[in-house]
Amino acid sequence: MHQHHFITGVAGFIGSQLADRLLDGGHRVSGADDFSLGTEANLAGARRSEAFHFSKADLSDPEAARAALHEAVEASGHIDVVWHLAANSDISAGVADLSVDYRKTLGTTYGTLEAARACGVKRIAFASTSAVYGERGDLLTEESGPLLPISNYGATKLASEALLSAAAESFLETIWIFRFPNVIGPRSTHGAIHDFVKRLAGHPESLRVLGDGTQQKPYLHVGELLDAMQFIVAQAGERRNVFNIGPQGDGTLVSFLAEQTIARVAPGTPIAYTGGDRGWVGDVPRFTYSTDKLRRLGWTPKLASDAAAIRAIDEIAREQGL
Amino acid sequence: MHQHHFITGVAGFIGSQLADRLLDGGHRVSGADDFSLGTEANLAGARRSEAFHFSKADLSDPEAARAALHEAVEASGHIDVVWHLAANSDISAGVADLSVDYRKTLGTTYGTLEAARACGVKRIAFASTSAVYGERGDLLTEESGPLLPISNYGATKLASEALLSAAAESFLETIWIFRFPNVIGPRSTHGAIHDFVKRLAGHPESLRVLGDGTQQKPYLHVGELLDAMQFIVAQAGERRNVFNIGPQGDGTLVSFLAEQTIARVAPGTPIAYTGGDRGWVGDVPRFTYSTDKLRRLGWTPKLASDAAAIRAIDEIAREQGL
Repeated sequence: MHQHHFITGVAGFIGSQLADRLLDGGHRVSGADDFSLGTEANLAGARRSEAFHFSKADLSDPEAARAALHEAVEASGHIDVVWHLAANSDISAGVADLSVDYRKTLGTTYGTLEAARACGVKRIAFASTSAVYGERGDLLTEESGPLLPISNYGATKLASEALLSAAAESFLETIWIFRFPNVIGPRSTHGAIHDFVKRLAGHPESLRVLGDGTQQKPYLHVGELLDAMQFIVAQAGERRNVFNIGPQGDGTLVSFLAEQTIARVAPGTPIAYTGGDRGWVGDVPRFTYSTDKLRRLGWTPKLASDAAAIRAIDEIAREQGL
Repeated sequence: MHQHHFITGVAGFIGSQLADRLLDGGHRVSGADDFSLGTEANLAGARRSEAFHFSKADLSDPEAARAALHEAVEASGHIDVVWHLAANSDISAGVADLSVDYRKTLGTTYGTLEAARACGVKRIAFASTSAVYGERGDLLTEESGPLLPISNYGATKLASEALLSAAAESFLETIWIFRFPNVIGPRSTHGAIHDFVKRLAGHPESLRVLGDGTQQKPYLHVGELLDAMQFIVAQAGERRNVFNIGPQGDGTLVSFLAEQTIARVAPGTPIAYTGGDRGWVGDVPRFTYSTDKLRRLGWTPKLASDAAAIRAIDEIAREQGL
């Protein structure tokens, strides 16, 4: 059955690729973006489809959010699922100034919820993050608590989860909360690989890397992330569904990312580590992620973290014309 | 050593009693309130002290919050601890309209944090709630997860915890998060006992009670709550300290509250239960609360839940002139 999906942050890294995929699947897709991080270029494919409808809107304004959803309903009928991906994805920027994440990550959730209620939306899928767990020494499972994030990014994502959970008691029928790992691939706007490729493209004498290179995190390729998100929405039927999404096995070292990016883009460039165990205030330097719950639901990724990283390095380098 | 404490929601149920107690202890106390739920009458005792300074302010406005804290610093010097109690305490009102809790509970946290950073505050103690846990069948411990609140009240309290946790990574040195049970006693503005006493004072033919009377929750007397809060701030020295606070033993049945209130206020009044397992959408009908962590820290309450309820019924009845 073809459905009508609404994507917040539709012009962003993940939102635009979700739109392309849903359109390829024959669905109607509407979406909104304020172009603060998203770009018109990311929408090039979607714009070619008559089943795509776009509204430029700042969703942290409930009135603007309501207008955007209303416009989508007018254009393509009842909305089956809202995929809420709009957020500030620049974690370190949010550390310096709480108002950034408060408005762009939490405010867009508030606006989207107010609009969803007004427009009769019953199902919301939400891009949350491993950063909700804060810095813990143990294996991160969906049952881990207390949740004590160390960045405003993680805090406002957890805050968004909470608002959605309460809404699932009043007007929503189903919510899906995806706790993303580090997600990589084409169209990304932030992250270590993205930064390394861009800096190496400028032919520096050495590649400056934040921290001591021992930070270790699970990286998932955006293609696999989209597989997992669609699988969860199709298969997980509780009122509230919380799933960690991640690659199999261990995470990838920052030193590995730096070395592999240099090998692909500018062989021979030396690495200059800034030192310290983490990249910035609010950076969780290493964590081990349990994806057992998702595996039990029936989904496993094909790529390990290192393999995903190598693929993304190549894709991002090509994207930059290297 | 005498300290300078700042209380948000200082004219409210708990805030005003905390102010009285800190002033009795010889401390300087400043505070702010917008009088949306708090009252000037609650400040009568504090107003008699020269060590008390009050600002009328809506703390959900960061500029107003900054001005209030700045005024307190000017009046009494450096602030040692901010006790953040300002919130919408009317849980059922927040269910109907997310904007109430979003502004009064979460917005005041945002404003208080922005002001705290501007004024060099390093320590914040926060009134959170058992409602952050949502509806779970198991024993609620500080380690329970995922946290899926079912009311906007619980959601915006969890969201506030998250913002405080992130701030503890950047500019705050210590946060204390108290997860309150149902708190009862003089000056309360909401809750079953308060409602029952007020309704019985109007001499109804029967006492209407929401739900079927089997809702069972731990009730703690406000006097013991203040003991516990002060104990935790004095004794718990982690960067982030999360503690459930509750009475010993089982919770109290709503039917017990109704019967005891009738016995004290209007003997013989029949009870009319509205039926259903809960009082309203977003009400967690029963939960079992672990306070082992607090006991291990060295604090135990003197009153069981039922005894606390009987004391509060008497106090609230006297407060209403009955």
